[in-house]
Amino acid sequence: MSKDYSNGAAHVRGAFVPIDEATIPVLDWGLTRSDATYDVVHVRNGAFFRLDDHLKRFQRSLDSLRLVPPYSMGEMARIAAQCVVLSGLRNSYVALVSTRGRPRIAGSRRPQDCENTFIAYAIPWIDVIPPDVQERGAHLHIASVPRISSRSVDPTVKNYHWGDLTRGLFEAHDAGFDTTVLLDADGFVTEGPGFNVFVVQDGRVLTPDRGALEGITRQTVLDLCAMKRIDAAIVPLRRSDLLEADEMFCATTAGGVMPVSRIDGHIMSNDGPGPISMLLKEFYWAQHDAGWHMTPLDYENFEEPYAARLGA
Amino acid sequence: MSKDYSNGAAHVRGAFVPIDEATIPVLDWGLTRSDATYDVVHVRNGAFFRLDDHLKRFQRSLDSLRLVPPYSMGEMARIAAQCVVLSGLRNSYVALVSTRGRPRIAGSRRPQDCENTFIAYAIPWIDVIPPDVQERGAHLHIASVPRISSRSVDPTVKNYHWGDLTRGLFEAHDAGFDTTVLLDADGFVTEGPGFNVFVVQDGRVLTPDRGALEGITRQTVLDLCAMKRIDAAIVPLRRSDLLEADEMFCATTAGGVMPVSRIDGHIMSNDGPGPISMLLKEFYWAQHDAGWHMTPLDYENFEEPYAARLGA
Repeated sequence: MSKDYSNGAAHVRGAFVPIDEATIPVLDWGLTRSDATYDVVHVRNGAFFRLDDHLKRFQRSLDSLRLVPPYSMGEMARIAAQCVVLSGLRNSYVALVSTRGRPRIAGSRRPQDCENTFIAYAIPWIDVIPPDVQERGAHLHIASVPRISSRSVDPTVKNYHWGDLTRGLFEAHDAGFDTTVLLDADGFVTEGPGFNVFVVQDGRVLTPDRGALEGITRQTVLDLCAMKRIDAAIVPLRRSDLLEADEMFCATTAGGVMPVSRIDGHIMSNDGPGPISMLLKEFYWAQHDAGWHMTPLDYENFEEPYAARLGA
Repeated sequence: MSKDYSNGAAHVRGAFVPIDEATIPVLDWGLTRSDATYDVVHVRNGAFFRLDDHLKRFQRSLDSLRLVPPYSMGEMARIAAQCVVLSGLRNSYVALVSTRGRPRIAGSRRPQDCENTFIAYAIPWIDVIPPDVQERGAHLHIASVPRISSRSVDPTVKNYHWGDLTRGLFEAHDAGFDTTVLLDADGFVTEGPGFNVFVVQDGRVLTPDRGALEGITRQTVLDLCAMKRIDAAIVPLRRSDLLEADEMFCATTAGGVMPVSRIDGHIMSNDGPGPISMLLKEFYWAQHDAGWHMTPLDYENFEEPYAARLGA
């Protein structure tokens, strides 16, 4: 193999390339209209976590946006797996992306006329909140900018409409916080830039019922709570629920369960990760190590096992 | 010159390339967070129209998003002009784009850590509404999906957050219409996918006061109305104002003044372009021919004159 995939491997326009050579045309509507969807699955110690759940959500997102990539879901999964194998990464952030592409008819402004694309890439593991910040508990700022309404852009269809989240991030950083959480226009808690949020109140684990991605890690937290007999629910949450929480944590594929120690002026758990947050974080990773929902990658002998295991 | 720029010319990562080779990295936050702004200026018969106004708006957009591209505004204007000259196009859609880029520090999730980019390209003239449709008057559908709130994403900062507009377009096409116009969550008229809208009521020309780009063509229409002593104003408009309009038209750089003949069930001006719409459309192009606000390009002798004319 002559190419250097050590920074990551990608599949674009039908070919595998090192991540630093992976591009999309400047005229792709994925850029010029943010007309795209994606999913991110992680690889931990050489195995995918909840791959099927990510593929199912990706399919729902594609259907919702009427995107039809040029591969079957089984083929897309195998391409993504091949990216991981090429990169050699044992811990990886793996993205599957589909963009509207460009019109087959030059100058057309109709999305129906576009040739939809599929992109996949595997890059080194990313923590949305850096490990040292997770260690002391993240400091969150409640943004003044409201989350884009679910009526305008469906947050359950994973998308790149991050203008509001980026403004929230700038606000948070300006005020000395690590990251942000956004409320909707009615004052209900939604999500942060790349993660779901949870609060712990009187031993109950709660996460917002609106304005947020139906995160696979969010579902995993609910599953883990059920296994540990911790009461958990998806409910409406307001600013006051954040400011009166006993504990708080964020959940995302790119980081897992990430404890929060401060939300604006409210300091929780002696200014550190709370006990239920830590229990869930440790259980989350222990379940990975136990092989729960894991699909091991075969880095040595890729072709045949994956064709069978991941479907054609 | 060995490269073929006949489909258009672009400037990406510091180099001029044919448009079909112009790409951005898949990891650029311009794609993965739609963290970008842009402006589009047109070239008509070899001259830019209102170039300075577009550059001023582009600067305001950059400032608003805290984007700092690696060139001065004068340099960016000259690069864009060079794209036009390379393409040889006498009528062109010219884009200036800046994206957040990628973090200088691998794995960072802070926009402040990113190396912002500048992209320019000149491609053949595009009409947002095709000429034959403009001829009979466009048929518009009022979308059920509301425009992304101005509180979440500032519509006066030209952006690629088009998820709502794309959904509106699909709705319109499904119902047999040419394109769409979106209301905000309170029921006020905003804009369509890539254009401002105007109604004519009792001889007055009106355009929405909210939820819309402050279009250069919109401003031009207001200027032309003043020159023709037609009463014009920026006002709140509701669905009923659309459905009771005497005339309606769209305005954008990529098409100019584009008459509308139907809005949902409401047929205007005997199902054709209205007289004030046509007067403004014709006056718009006549003013171009008269050299109003035009900056001619020198296709033969580019280097020196532009360094002086467009600023360093």
